[in-house]
Amino acid sequence: MKIEVFFTPLGLTAGDLAGRGVVVIDVLRATSTIVSALASGAKAIVPAASSEEAVRMTAKLEKDGFVLAGERKFLQIPGFSLGNSPREMTPEAVAGKTVYLATTNGTPALVTAQAGDPVLVGAAVNFAALAERARGLFLERGDLVIMCAGREKQFALEDAYTAGRLVKAVKKGTRKLTLNDAATTALGLCDRYADWREALEACDAARQLEELDLGEDVKFCAKANRFGLVPTFNEKRIT
Amino acid sequence: MKIEVFFTPLGLTAGDLAGRGVVVIDVLRATSTIVSALASGAKAIVPAASSEEAVRMTAKLEKDGFVLAGERKFLQIPGFSLGNSPREMTPEAVAGKTVYLATTNGTPALVTAQAGDPVLVGAAVNFAALAERARGLFLERGDLVIMCAGREKQFALEDAYTAGRLVKAVKKGTRKLTLNDAATTALGLCDRYADWREALEACDAARQLEELDLGEDVKFCAKANRFGLVPTFNEKRIT
Repeated sequence: MKIEVFFTPLGLTAGDLAGRGVVVIDVLRATSTIVSALASGAKAIVPAASSEEAVRMTAKLEKDGFVLAGERKFLQIPGFSLGNSPREMTPEAVAGKTVYLATTNGTPALVTAQAGDPVLVGAAVNFAALAERARGLFLERGDLVIMCAGREKQFALEDAYTAGRLVKAVKKGTRKLTLNDAATTALGLCDRYADWREALEACDAARQLEELDLGEDVKFCAKANRFGLVPTFNEKRIT
Repeated sequence: MKIEVFFTPLGLTAGDLAGRGVVVIDVLRATSTIVSALASGAKAIVPAASSEEAVRMTAKLEKDGFVLAGERKFLQIPGFSLGNSPREMTPEAVAGKTVYLATTNGTPALVTAQAGDPVLVGAAVNFAALAERARGLFLERGDLVIMCAGREKQFALEDAYTAGRLVKAVKKGTRKLTLNDAATTALGLCDRYADWREALEACDAARQLEELDLGEDVKFCAKANRFGLVPTFNEKRIT
């Protein structure tokens, strides 16, 4: 039985992930936003590696079937209808529509992860449902990959903490478990922070969001188990 | 005052490091090997990004002035005189010579780090001297970068633990300190493992070295403060 955590998608190739169960985590904010959008009735989310790609993908689509959403440096991309805030993903904004989402860290991580099978989308906001689903998968396969999006190609504490919580939940009672160094370290973070509120208080991304008056997003993303759904990413679409 | 830790060199560019004080850490084994070689009287170490580059660099040199050393998958590179073991770096093997070293993680990290000024080479084996030097630098500049080599482009626990010990030693008594998420997490590892022996027992690379009968290298690298020197990397040479 093996669980591997990766703190960023860098250095990972399709060959490392092909056919393995993969959970992608970007707590602040892409995966929280994706869960929120689907809970509000979005038809699907299509993650794009860049804003240009999102524009290109939607160039020939009927205007009323999709929404462009995303951020650069935390802020809404000019010309896009929505940013990357889970609070913006209201039924009014996204119900029945396909959301094309381009973010700095989360959507490129999802694009890297797509060789996995299945690819689950996780955050604090759907943690309990995610953990149950990931544990089932792990017990069936004896293997799980947890990929953190990280931040600006580097380690992000909020994702690593969530990965650690997931390792803890998934491995329960497992004997003969192999963890890679990142999984061992992520698991250790569970003892350091009582909950997501504490972990997010300690992390860089939350500080920067607060400076940009996006502190309400941090609060939203820190509240565990708002939603009971576990999005899966398949054939370029998250549903 | 700011300390940034990077768990791997991936995603870092010369621009991120230019003119900043940088410590490079690859406990198992490149930076331990470099310290050991210099302590045995090597004239200099030249880190190469690849074995091919090391061969190319030495093609026109006098044969008795240099030694080729390095590993691929932990084992000595065919045609090279030495592997990447600190125990091989005896005065008989390296005194008075320039060691051209090519390793999987450590020497590419050094090559990435060379925009720093100065670039210090650290490990457990020279930790006390390193910490004193790095603290002086930090107090003078108000800034320090600690770059872990990591392993196969991923997080390595032994390097992160050493980075955490260094953050702890360097920041002593500092008010108004900014740590990035990786520095915060590395610092937390200091409470988790009592010393390098414990940290190295928990890490993947040590397990793999032991499986390859290189457990003596792990013991060598785990013993703190064997050496009092702090190598610096400047103009392509570590002295």
